[in-house]
Amino acid sequence: MSVTWFNQFYKEIADSPLSAWLELLPGQISTWHKEQLHGDFNKWIKLLGKLPQTQPSLINLTDQVEFGREADINEYTQKQIIGLLKQFMPWRKGPFQVHGIHIDTEWRSDWKWDRVQPHIQSLDNRYVLDVGCGSGYHMWRMLGENAKMVVGVDPSQLFLMQFQAMKHFNADPRIHLLPVGVEQLPDKNAFDTVFSMGVFYHRKSPLDFLQQLKNQLRPGGELVLETLVVEGDENTVLMAGERYAQMRNVWFLPSTDALCLWMKRLGFKNVRVVDLAATSIKEQRATQWMDSQSLVDFLDPNDHSKTIEGYPAPLRAVVIAER
Amino acid sequence: MSVTWFNQFYKEIADSPLSAWLELLPGQISTWHKEQLHGDFNKWIKLLGKLPQTQPSLINLTDQVEFGREADINEYTQKQIIGLLKQFMPWRKGPFQVHGIHIDTEWRSDWKWDRVQPHIQSLDNRYVLDVGCGSGYHMWRMLGENAKMVVGVDPSQLFLMQFQAMKHFNADPRIHLLPVGVEQLPDKNAFDTVFSMGVFYHRKSPLDFLQQLKNQLRPGGELVLETLVVEGDENTVLMAGERYAQMRNVWFLPSTDALCLWMKRLGFKNVRVVDLAATSIKEQRATQWMDSQSLVDFLDPNDHSKTIEGYPAPLRAVVIAER
Amino acid sequence: MSVTWFNQFYKEIADSPLSAWLELLPGQISTWHKEQLHGDFNKWIKLLGKLPQTQPSLINLTDQVEFGREADINEYTQKQIIGLLKQFMPWRKGPFQVHGIHIDTEWRSDWKWDRVQPHIQSLDNRYVLDVGCGSGYHMWRMLGENAKMVVGVDPSQLFLMQFQAMKHFNADPRIHLLPVGVEQLPDKNAFDTVFSMGVFYHRKSPLDFLQQLKNQLRPGGELVLETLVVEGDENTVLMAGERYAQMRNVWFLPSTDALCLWMKRLGFKNVRVVDLAATSIKEQRATQWMDSQSLVDFLDPNDHSKTIEGYPAPLRAVVIAER
Amino acid sequence: MSVTWFNQFYKEIADSPLSAWLELLPGQISTWHKEQLHGDFNKWIKLLGKLPQTQPSLINLTDQVEFGREADINEYTQKQIIGLLKQFMPWRKGPFQVHGIHIDTEWRSDWKWDRVQPHIQSLDNRYVLDVGCGSGYHMWRMLGENAKMVVGVDPSQLFLMQFQAMKHFNADPRIHLLPVGVEQLPDKNAFDTVFSMGVFYHRKSPLDFLQQLKNQLRPGGELVLETLVVEGDENTVLMAGERYAQMRNVWFLPSTDALCLWMKRLGFKNVRVVDLAATSIKEQRATQWMDSQSLVDFLDPNDHSKTIEGYPAPLRAVVIAER
Repeated sequence: MSVTWFNQFYKEIADSPLSAWLELLPGQISTWHKEQLHGDFNKWIKLLGKLPQTQPSLINLTDQVEFGREADINEYTQKQIIGLLKQFMPWRKGPFQVHGIHIDTEWRSDWKWDRVQPHIQSLDNRYVLDVGCGSGYHMWRMLGENAKMVVGVDPSQLFLMQFQAMKHFNADPRIHLLPVGVEQLPDKNAFDTVFSMGVFYHRKSPLDFLQQLKNQLRPGGELVLETLVVEGDENTVLMAGERYAQMRNVWFLPSTDALCLWMKRLGFKNVRVVDLAATSIKEQRATQWMDSQSLVDFLDPNDHSKTIEGYPAPLRAVVIAER
Repeated sequence: MSVTWFNQFYKEIADSPLSAWLELLPGQISTWHKEQLHGDFNKWIKLLGKLPQTQPSLINLTDQVEFGREADINEYTQKQIIGLLKQFMPWRKGPFQVHGIHIDTEWRSDWKWDRVQPHIQSLDNRYVLDVGCGSGYHMWRMLGENAKMVVGVDPSQLFLMQFQAMKHFNADPRIHLLPVGVEQLPDKNAFDTVFSMGVFYHRKSPLDFLQQLKNQLRPGGELVLETLVVEGDENTVLMAGERYAQMRNVWFLPSTDALCLWMKRLGFKNVRVVDLAATSIKEQRATQWMDSQSLVDFLDPNDHSKTIEGYPAPLRAVVIAER
Repeated sequence: MSVTWFNQFYKEIADSPLSAWLELLPGQISTWHKEQLHGDFNKWIKLLGKLPQTQPSLINLTDQVEFGREADINEYTQKQIIGLLKQFMPWRKGPFQVHGIHIDTEWRSDWKWDRVQPHIQSLDNRYVLDVGCGSGYHMWRMLGENAKMVVGVDPSQLFLMQFQAMKHFNADPRIHLLPVGVEQLPDKNAFDTVFSMGVFYHRKSPLDFLQQLKNQLRPGGELVLETLVVEGDENTVLMAGERYAQMRNVWFLPSTDALCLWMKRLGFKNVRVVDLAATSIKEQRATQWMDSQSLVDFLDPNDHSKTIEGYPAPLRAVVIAER
Repeated sequence: MSVTWFNQFYKEIADSPLSAWLELLPGQISTWHKEQLHGDFNKWIKLLGKLPQTQPSLINLTDQVEFGREADINEYTQKQIIGLLKQFMPWRKGPFQVHGIHIDTEWRSDWKWDRVQPHIQSLDNRYVLDVGCGSGYHMWRMLGENAKMVVGVDPSQLFLMQFQAMKHFNADPRIHLLPVGVEQLPDKNAFDTVFSMGVFYHRKSPLDFLQQLKNQLRPGGELVLETLVVEGDENTVLMAGERYAQMRNVWFLPSTDALCLWMKRLGFKNVRVVDLAATSIKEQRATQWMDSQSLVDFLDPNDHSKTIEGYPAPLRAVVIAER
């Protein structure tokens, strides 16, 4: 079954600007499928196979991500869907509405989209890449903006399952998630817009990461980068310790000036910060669909301007630039 | 342009039993395209691009290979087509009829087809592979038998051009020629019928070749093998010298008994010889479309039962077996 | 420990005509060591480690292979050595004399050497390769002829252990066994003499095998090939069935004329048969050191001129040629 | 000839802690030799071959690098050597004394060594790696401290020639320069001490570089890192523009506090700054052996505390840490 997902992608790209991906990607996906499957992968595939076939009377991708109305299904089916989808917890990025089921995710990713969307070029008819796409919430919103094709990459196999669970209710051939890292993608300058939100600070080599994003963009294409930043001038860069807000694997947190300088150094044009926002404990919090600790637990209980480790609390910038 | 040919193939196979080919083939084709192009390749591509667009009022693939009637085009266009197609000389396998143009090839490949076709399983709805397909004459005849898909492999780039020149007049999405050797194909047991006519005696390792053919067949699939043989018992094998009938690169010429024994040793079932025929100088001869030496020049002028080197003259067997 | 064997080899060849082997071989050996070890490998290594250090008062490699005298060790040590060496049974190629211990192997390989040695060029100061060297009996005899270096290749790990067990008693830096196939060796035309005895008939592709041997020889170097043959003319080739004299994996058995023809076809010069001998049941038989079935059990009990399957009984030819 | 250099290295390491390098390095060097030779490589090899054989009456590696006395050779030979060595200009790191010839290099690398040497662990009997070794000046000084083996890596082929030119006068088997990058070296934790002086700021990914250095060190081994730094606190990092002091390819210039923080983040222990020094125009300047522009030309003519681009002038720190 999982193989079919990718065969469908290959079919879609064979006569597209992404066709050169066929030189590498199917071999990588095949290796991944043989050697790197998550221990629960086959269990997850079985669960996905149990999702009932429904007839959504509505698909809404413009102001939220909504597949079907409650009235389209009966109560038993709704409970069945809830039971299956809860097996894919924790749900982090969302929310999703599925036949009246409100998947209340840890993040209000719609708030982030609202901060980003007004500043970007129209996605109409564009090839769009989302690097670090998670379960794909923003990908659906990009599709809602009429993208010609939306490709997400994220190595997490749980996110892949969550994405496929949602795609089950809206099997749109224009949207695909690939379980690979951006560093595995061939440098083909094929996309009109590249998003990367919430990934940069996990990278040990920020310049190589920016270069990889650039290598995916066609000349003139647009990069939309969202990441953690700190206050300071163009020489200010915070190196996180072993943990930052309880996250392992956080590395460089530059100021917005430093970040913009780095992007210019690599040749990005028209680099500008379009949004800067402290993450609120209303935007990221525990829910019924993500019931472990969340932001409020990662901040200093006496001073929400600091993380529990004493670093400045999460501050997120959206930077836009062109290749 | 040439890349488009193969992208179309990738698209066709992405959701077919051949989908696993995508793991290797696009990378191989890309390497081929970067490193192994014939010196005339780009010239040939330009010539192909000059072939006029026509509206064939008839496509006949059943008793011959015929694309369009003479009346479909004017005299000037006909001359133009003839001029372009002659640039791809020598034409060896055929004949083809294109808008009344008779491409009179060195070989009457239709005679061979008539000896083979009555003995094989119906090709209706089957995936068919032709190993060493030349310009593709037999592939069209296979399509005429209603194959679901016909794939030919042959490393010769001139043959690829001749094939594409014919496909220009009948752009059927079910027929594809790949410029690779059978040894490069992934072992996926994906084909219902595998043909290999006129290749076996060019192989230094006949058993490995038979094994490669077997590895392309699904269990129960049919192999149709045509090759040069000699008279003799099951222990008789002629090793050609540096040249056989002026051909370099001829190696093992077994008796039909030896050949059948070898095939059984590799696990082929129901192995039987269905045709045995000395090649006549009417079947293989110089024409206006292949104007250099042909069979008559390669035989002993005083004794047509011998090659010019003194070996037995060409005797060809068709052997059929199942996997 | 085992790694040390090969490091020693690398050291020896680094400034020899074989130095180019370093480009590939250490990587292959490392892969072999990681992925392809026999289930008993580590047990064997431990056993080797228990072999007592002795002071051989004699090394004889000229008329037999003899390391040390019985008087060099006491009775307890002799029993210890016998007990350890028997763990590496079955011993096929020999015999060996170790401090008075007579390792009476299945084969009288010394008889074969006596048939081969008189016909070959002097090995004095030459780089010598033995393809399919088994436990290395002939390698020691080659060293006894004053070869500069003797390299054996054989993928069997039990043979490697037997070889190292013997080398324990005579750690000569000029003799090395590599657990790889000849097809893995880089084509460097580095050897003065290449032996291959008892391998050819196990090859599915006899011409490729002959070519591989040729690719190891320097121009003018000598090939010494020993293999099973059948009676017949230059067009006679027996293809064995699933078993020949109970051996699986036997393929082409040509007549000596056919074999010589094949070798000439590949460019070998001065090809000649120097010995032809039916294998006697005295030359290959069960012993205390190889206590399962042997030749007598593989022949037709009523007619020793036939194998148990009805083929001609083993007839072995020694063919010598130059590159 | 050049191949011989590396074969000698392979021989030396085959039974050393570096033996595992044989799995990769000879293949890489062979690829380098086939595909990446400098256009002048063969010319340089010929020049090296013309260096006269001399009998140095003295080898001094302790307070300077000196091979032979002036009196060891006649005037003609001295002129010949000077003429040949000047063909390898520009000479950057030194100085070297060769039979009374003073190779006055752009850098007084001896001054740097004097700042580094008092702070490091004794090199006596250690395996030492110098990453970015240039022409090898410091390598000779390391050998002068009685290192067991000194390996330098630097991709510059001119530096390789300068190194071999010096080694011509002192063919010590313990010292080797490999024309590869540190990222190509297998991670074998084989060295007791790793030096990297003057490389860090050329790296686009400083953390990956530090990690690569760490991967060469045995547990407890010592890293000696010298690089450009800026004044500032642990959050201060200067990203250079397209040029810094006229050098292209300069990236991260952290403060010493930031640099130490980064090293600790990667698990280095006992990280400390042992020296901090502004580079003087006496330490880096044009000479007869490097006759183009040097530091004085790269500084602001009116204010030597700034580079010509307006950045802080070169300030260099030596940081030492343990794995």
